[in-house]
Amino acid sequence: MTGARLIGVGVGPGDPELLTVAAVRAIEAAPVVAWFAKAGRRGHARTVADVWMKPCVEIALDYPLTTEIAFDDSRYRSALRAFYDASSLALDAHIDAGRDVALLCEGDPMFYGSFMHVFERLAPRRPVKVIPGITGMSGCWSAALAPMTWGDDALVVLPGTLPEDALARRLREADAAVVMKIGRNFDKVRRAIEEAGLTDRAIYVERGTQGAQRIVPMAEAGGVAAPYFSLVLVPGRGRRP
Amino acid sequence: MTGARLIGVGVGPGDPELLTVAAVRAIEAAPVVAWFAKAGRRGHARTVADVWMKPCVEIALDYPLTTEIAFDDSRYRSALRAFYDASSLALDAHIDAGRDVALLCEGDPMFYGSFMHVFERLAPRRPVKVIPGITGMSGCWSAALAPMTWGDDALVVLPGTLPEDALARRLREADAAVVMKIGRNFDKVRRAIEEAGLTDRAIYVERGTQGAQRIVPMAEAGGVAAPYFSLVLVPGRGRRP
Repeated sequence: MTGARLIGVGVGPGDPELLTVAAVRAIEAAPVVAWFAKAGRRGHARTVADVWMKPCVEIALDYPLTTEIAFDDSRYRSALRAFYDASSLALDAHIDAGRDVALLCEGDPMFYGSFMHVFERLAPRRPVKVIPGITGMSGCWSAALAPMTWGDDALVVLPGTLPEDALARRLREADAAVVMKIGRNFDKVRRAIEEAGLTDRAIYVERGTQGAQRIVPMAEAGGVAAPYFSLVLVPGRGRRP
Repeated sequence: MTGARLIGVGVGPGDPELLTVAAVRAIEAAPVVAWFAKAGRRGHARTVADVWMKPCVEIALDYPLTTEIAFDDSRYRSALRAFYDASSLALDAHIDAGRDVALLCEGDPMFYGSFMHVFERLAPRRPVKVIPGITGMSGCWSAALAPMTWGDDALVVLPGTLPEDALARRLREADAAVVMKIGRNFDKVRRAIEEAGLTDRAIYVERGTQGAQRIVPMAEAGGVAAPYFSLVLVPGRGRRP
């Protein structure tokens, strides 16, 4: 063991000032900084971290595919598995040579993060540190000035990839809710929110804390698809004195 | 209008390096910094922010009571209501005089935060900015090195104050779960987790990211009460390639 570590660094929802002090220090100190990106793109996490970067070895981990194949297709799973295997090996080579590797993650590394796939592979044999990040949902409800949970409110976080009836049922049971991963699920999510009787309480947030941020009541959101960085908030209405 | 603002500043879960750059800059720039505290105590948020404080007007907002009266007692509600009214007026006097007021908040201001009670009172008439913070749960699952949500996992966040049967029922339906506000609800929460068949998957985290941090499997947690800063994590097991 060289003592070098894998460090998962949450870079938050988009605003570079929403990195933590710990994240900035980890980026500045790491001899190797890596991130995931769509092939040919720069990678959102890398863009967010830009102002904090120092000279270092940079590693772009380009996804072999994103939405070209459905995620329940076995080709999707095997392509992704091979990609995470290869990415982990590439980073492990640096750790093996004694160099800490900071892996940048949008939002929080342990919350729907691609980081977790590398973590699973390397944690059994390497020291790992995780620096939490502001989640996309925290960034969005702060930007929307929407208090989310009061008193005994339970919060439910739902991926928009769930089937419409599952979304509607879980939304009906929730005191407060966040629907993530909207994108091409937008129309389905809108219907599920309507079925749950929550349209009047729901807020649509696009690119929260980023430059082109847009915050509107769900009823005015329009369109049939949404950017990847969008989500729906249903603030709670629980106990308050 | 003086243009001065109320600024909700999330200070995160306890580690002073887990403040965001935006939070540090807001604290450094604000002429007035306020926080909530148990009477006679310094206030956890103020302690976390200590290394970042500059000379300024400091305002401790001391709760008139915490758990001496049950929260469903009308005396509790009226005492708290009067307290939040008076606190809001005290901060508003500074805003009225043209001074920005930074109100420090443990975790994230809009997530079960006392900040929201001041926000409700002042937002109709003053500009407000909210700087999100790392939530206690993000701090804890990062410290525990526990990947929380994979693929289509839905996350449910439950206050430990809920009745045992409601906790058990909602835990059974969850893919991933966090139980917050443990404290004197610890024994009830443990039974609900057992009833939901989740004891083997649950992790107990006490004072996550703080000095005396303790992370153990739920089955080994012991005791009938827990400190206020404790929670239980049930990591998801969703889709992964």
